[in-house]
Amino acid sequence: KRARDYGIQIGVLSTGAHNAITDVAGVQVGHQTLNSSNHIRTGVTAILPHSGNIFQQKVPAAVYVGNGFGKLAGTTQVQELGNIETPVILTNTLSIGTAMNAVVGYTLQQPGNETVQSVNAVVGETNDGYLNDIRGRHVTEADVVKAIAQAAGGPVAEGAVGAGTGTVCFGFKGGIGTSSRLLPEQVGGYTVGVLVQTNFGGVLQVNGVPVGKELNHYYMNQELKDSADGSCMIVVATDAPVDARNLERMAKRAMLGLAKTGGIASNGSGDYVIAFSTATTLRVPYTSEVKTETVTLLRNDEMSPLFMAVIEATEEAIINSLFAAETTTGKENRTVEALPVKKVLSILKKHNAIERY
Amino acid sequence: KRARDYGIQIGVLSTGAHNAITDVAGVQVGHQTLNSSNHIRTGVTAILPHSGNIFQQKVPAAVYVGNGFGKLAGTTQVQELGNIETPVILTNTLSIGTAMNAVVGYTLQQPGNETVQSVNAVVGETNDGYLNDIRGRHVTEADVVKAIAQAAGGPVAEGAVGAGTGTVCFGFKGGIGTSSRLLPEQVGGYTVGVLVQTNFGGVLQVNGVPVGKELNHYYMNQELKDSADGSCMIVVATDAPVDARNLERMAKRAMLGLAKTGGIASNGSGDYVIAFSTATTLRVPYTSEVKTETVTLLRNDEMSPLFMAVIEATEEAIINSLFAAETTTGKENRTVEALPVKKVLSILKKHNAIERY
Amino acid sequence: KRARDYGIQIGVLSTGAHNAITDVAGVQVGHQTLNSSNHIRTGVTAILPHSGNIFQQKVPAAVYVGNGFGKLAGTTQVQELGNIETPVILTNTLSIGTAMNAVVGYTLQQPGNETVQSVNAVVGETNDGYLNDIRGRHVTEADVVKAIAQAAGGPVAEGAVGAGTGTVCFGFKGGIGTSSRLLPEQVGGYTVGVLVQTNFGGVLQVNGVPVGKELNHYYMNQELKDSADGSCMIVVATDAPVDARNLERMAKRAMLGLAKTGGIASNGSGDYVIAFSTATTLRVPYTSEVKTETVTLLRNDEMSPLFMAVIEATEEAIINSLFAAETTTGKENRTVEALPVKKVLSILKKHNAIERY
Amino acid sequence: KRARDYGIQIGVLSTGAHNAITDVAGVQVGHQTLNSSNHIRTGVTAILPHSGNIFQQKVPAAVYVGNGFGKLAGTTQVQELGNIETPVILTNTLSIGTAMNAVVGYTLQQPGNETVQSVNAVVGETNDGYLNDIRGRHVTEADVVKAIAQAAGGPVAEGAVGAGTGTVCFGFKGGIGTSSRLLPEQVGGYTVGVLVQTNFGGVLQVNGVPVGKELNHYYMNQELKDSADGSCMIVVATDAPVDARNLERMAKRAMLGLAKTGGIASNGSGDYVIAFSTATTLRVPYTSEVKTETVTLLRNDEMSPLFMAVIEATEEAIINSLFAAETTTGKENRTVEALPVKKVLSILKKHNAIERY
Repeated sequence: KRARDYGIQIGVLSTGAHNAITDVAGVQVGHQTLNSSNHIRTGVTAILPHSGNIFQQKVPAAVYVGNGFGKLAGTTQVQELGNIETPVILTNTLSIGTAMNAVVGYTLQQPGNETVQSVNAVVGETNDGYLNDIRGRHVTEADVVKAIAQAAGGPVAEGAVGAGTGTVCFGFKGGIGTSSRLLPEQVGGYTVGVLVQTNFGGVLQVNGVPVGKELNHYYMNQELKDSADGSCMIVVATDAPVDARNLERMAKRAMLGLAKTGGIASNGSGDYVIAFSTATTLRVPYTSEVKTETVTLLRNDEMSPLFMAVIEATEEAIINSLFAAETTTGKENRTVEALPVKKVLSILKKHNAIERY
Repeated sequence: KRARDYGIQIGVLSTGAHNAITDVAGVQVGHQTLNSSNHIRTGVTAILPHSGNIFQQKVPAAVYVGNGFGKLAGTTQVQELGNIETPVILTNTLSIGTAMNAVVGYTLQQPGNETVQSVNAVVGETNDGYLNDIRGRHVTEADVVKAIAQAAGGPVAEGAVGAGTGTVCFGFKGGIGTSSRLLPEQVGGYTVGVLVQTNFGGVLQVNGVPVGKELNHYYMNQELKDSADGSCMIVVATDAPVDARNLERMAKRAMLGLAKTGGIASNGSGDYVIAFSTATTLRVPYTSEVKTETVTLLRNDEMSPLFMAVIEATEEAIINSLFAAETTTGKENRTVEALPVKKVLSILKKHNAIERY
Repeated sequence: KRARDYGIQIGVLSTGAHNAITDVAGVQVGHQTLNSSNHIRTGVTAILPHSGNIFQQKVPAAVYVGNGFGKLAGTTQVQELGNIETPVILTNTLSIGTAMNAVVGYTLQQPGNETVQSVNAVVGETNDGYLNDIRGRHVTEADVVKAIAQAAGGPVAEGAVGAGTGTVCFGFKGGIGTSSRLLPEQVGGYTVGVLVQTNFGGVLQVNGVPVGKELNHYYMNQELKDSADGSCMIVVATDAPVDARNLERMAKRAMLGLAKTGGIASNGSGDYVIAFSTATTLRVPYTSEVKTETVTLLRNDEMSPLFMAVIEATEEAIINSLFAAETTTGKENRTVEALPVKKVLSILKKHNAIERY
Repeated sequence: KRARDYGIQIGVLSTGAHNAITDVAGVQVGHQTLNSSNHIRTGVTAILPHSGNIFQQKVPAAVYVGNGFGKLAGTTQVQELGNIETPVILTNTLSIGTAMNAVVGYTLQQPGNETVQSVNAVVGETNDGYLNDIRGRHVTEADVVKAIAQAAGGPVAEGAVGAGTGTVCFGFKGGIGTSSRLLPEQVGGYTVGVLVQTNFGGVLQVNGVPVGKELNHYYMNQELKDSADGSCMIVVATDAPVDARNLERMAKRAMLGLAKTGGIASNGSGDYVIAFSTATTLRVPYTSEVKTETVTLLRNDEMSPLFMAVIEATEEAIINSLFAAETTTGKENRTVEALPVKKVLSILKKHNAIERY
């Protein structure tokens, strides 16, 4: 069950149908989970802005660097040109090169791309080396291609799957989480969807409640032992017609959502946000007969509801990753416990932060 | 009474002696409040990194732009050179020019600055035009100089004073707030202090509790009437020996603290963070006989506790501004109510988010 | 006579009719020169993107910071929102505050702006304190308003006028310079205009010829005495339909033009570029009945000719400022010689870098 | 013969012993050239800041993005943490993933790195797809490791070698070039070295002389056929004790050097600068017993000579790449001619821009 199924209502806006990034029409998500032997706990998650040839029909996009202790590939071109031309891939830190090779290969061989000679692969990562034999670099190009091939709309598997197979969040098992928000019609009726790969620390708050403190399980507690390091990859999708500049502003707000879960963007955390718009009228064709493109864009003044949607969906996506991820044992027989959901719910109840239980 | 006096414990770290930015040794704060006639509700707040000649003994500094719908003067030079050479001044949006003139004049006439020909005045603002006749531009250069002259250490007046005289926050009367954190000795024993000028919106949370929702007083509630616009100026001081690069990282974390109060960094919000280090060994002399400077700096790996301190102190400073600010009537007979503290405390009690009451 | 009148052909593109920023339709320039007593050598230059109410009809814009040892006001809002809402003002370093006050006053009292409460004044500067009694702060708000009021299209006065009255460039008298480029019809037929306020150093090159070296008058010559410090303000205008992101890219190229004159963007130089598009279809109305705006924009792929135009026009504008500025004596009886044009022409002839002479 | 051997004196500063990036003590360069069949014209160039374990002894570093149409890996971590922890690798656009994998593998297996789980590989590229079968992705991990293994001090091979095997510059055969500058003792006696991988366009200037125009071989000539696209990777090394902030400032100046060769940073050009300091006192140990590091750094005021050195060395490195690269035939029997050196020298002579010939 997801957080909302327990009556946990994060924020004030409504969710989309699946409360997932796939509520943004056309967005697809695919996981390839590597969970074998005692030491392989890793994987790949692919997020596709649309199901067509993304290189030929690029989408407006932006990247925001919350804390740059990470290896996200593709950032500078997205920032310069304002678009994304491949699926967005998430995996582990030491598999970025392999994932780039896979994305390049995938793109080169797509029909229509026969003469393409340059591909800007967008590949993010977090470090799952506590549970996973990350030095073994077990992710293959085939794994990445499978994640892309398996991408689909509808409900998204959360928790210890795909790129979240081996991650740790607030000292509990983290993983993949997702959530969405649907704006009221008066402010456009747009959808915002977020998907996260959670692998960071801090002082966990669930819907405002200091769960980490109550469980005495947080960064900087008396023993000062817990590390807050790790990372969080955040992917933000919307169907609102916003250009790269305003997408960057939306991306920045995702860090505010992370903050509300108690994340602190610690020194060792690679916290990145990738935001894109699926608005079909904003597609950027690879080649064009004409020198201009005519686009209809939201005015700056209309952005605030979208900002709030990003914040809420990011917060809830992170919480969802924790609720979904199961206790996992991996490398060197290390075990990371799942969030003790029962205890958490009772803490939430004590704090009146849950509607029913 | 301040939030903490009611038993509201924000975060997990201890505060400094005054729970104020002035807990960072040497930092001084001065207010000049303009509260006269029916329509003048504005003022100036000055923050001095040290009590000496700041131009001759610059301090390492950084600026982070949370949302740039604002007029903060001095940003690019701070970013380029990594230091601040004047007091930091906060005032209203349309008085930036006057405040710059005042800071330039103040600096030119300080003993020792007789040949100075270039001054980078750091002046921030928020827009108090709801309560204040901002178009009348009532702040004078003398007011700014008074704020500097009145600067002192020790307890800092909060609420509707100085640059916070006319501001509005989450639909309630905002103003100046401050807070500090003292790190445990094992992680250096450093102090972080924050001062805010609050004038923004969102969905107010106090210590995690959804007060805005409970009061049905928030951005995007059914009527969609409340505007989240406005701004938040945040000044972060520390005695930790950190250079401009790591100060910028600290500055970024202040926005995470703002997020925890329910702020959304709306389109129209000018959210800026100015961070500086008072470490005396890091002073940058205006002129020097030698071409190098030798400095002892914290390693990147040691930054996370400081990040957490910034987040906590920012959150608490914002809440303090709300607890301190009193109901204010201003321009066109408009009234902005103070935060209904009694009601808020009872909501916090209901949510078990307060230690005693 | 301007450089081109001597047969100096900089670059490969043609110029506009006036070889001035005013070749971009609608752009107006006004100077207010303060040249009195022995010690006042300063002034104001105003560049208006169009002759209407700029606050009500903002223009897409960007700022690029070449080297941030300067005080350009208004940068962060231009970067965040992607537009400019006031005339662009250039003056001396210590008069930024006064100029901001003037621009705010000017904007508040324009018909239609009766309820405006926030103005982002864009005011740049260079330091004319060698010739000018800069500490005396002789520029008044009235001077700024006069510069705006005097703004007109057509030929632009160059040299020691307006904000260039007291500046020094490559050790010679600098000042205001301007130039433009007209793209061939096949690549759109757009116009790019540049105006500069030159006050920087390096090793002067004129049309590629090492004039500074030949005159033994350059930074880092044997005596190491010349300082390269100072600043260069660069304003780039175009009628091409480009948004803020691509305007920022254009702005960046202006520094390449500066490089070709031998500028080095020294530590003490405040080198800033402000770029805007006058395309009427891209105007951003202050208020709007509709939530979106429909715009026709140049594709990224079409930007390179505009980049080249910016580089060429910037180079020529700087050279023009040197050719126009006359020997000036100012504060403390200091004299800065004009570029010795005759000698320069003969050096250019020796280097075959001039068509006729 | 290199440009300087013909009496072409670029700039006013002296060069180091080898006029190469390796004049910066400790810096090593290695090439692996792939020149086989009719269609493989590519390779790898490795630049090592020092010959020790770079991961354990990181160097202060910065990245500047001149134009981000490129795939440089590792940027955000360098920018966040201010250091580089691997060799810098240059190769072709579609081989970034392979090179990252190689660098990660190389780092993981270095003695002392047995427990390392995170590696930030810095890998740059330009697109050699005109002469090289880039889609074939012929670079292997072994090639990258060989380039690293072959790295040495002393003279550096230039032209169509390593990552420059298949590149094109100003329509002529480009490749690898290098140059250095030695500052006078009065300003510190520091060395600055630059290495470039040239693959870009514009209007070629050699030592200020409009060679491209004279050869009627330039971007935007009447036929408008030449593309200026491509890219330029620039690596800047210095032994001056400068931190990441001032290294970024140095990196920015490299683009000014590119400008002086006639480069325009066209839309499709991926122009990046990576700068690092080899000062042994500034090494950043991976782990440390102490929480601080004590460093002696150059003051901002001392940076200008280093800026000028970067500009001059970059300009000369680019010209050297053109002088060294030989006519190359590759994919689809395409031929790119070498710069016609004899003609160029005679043009330079005509323009009096060469000392002897």
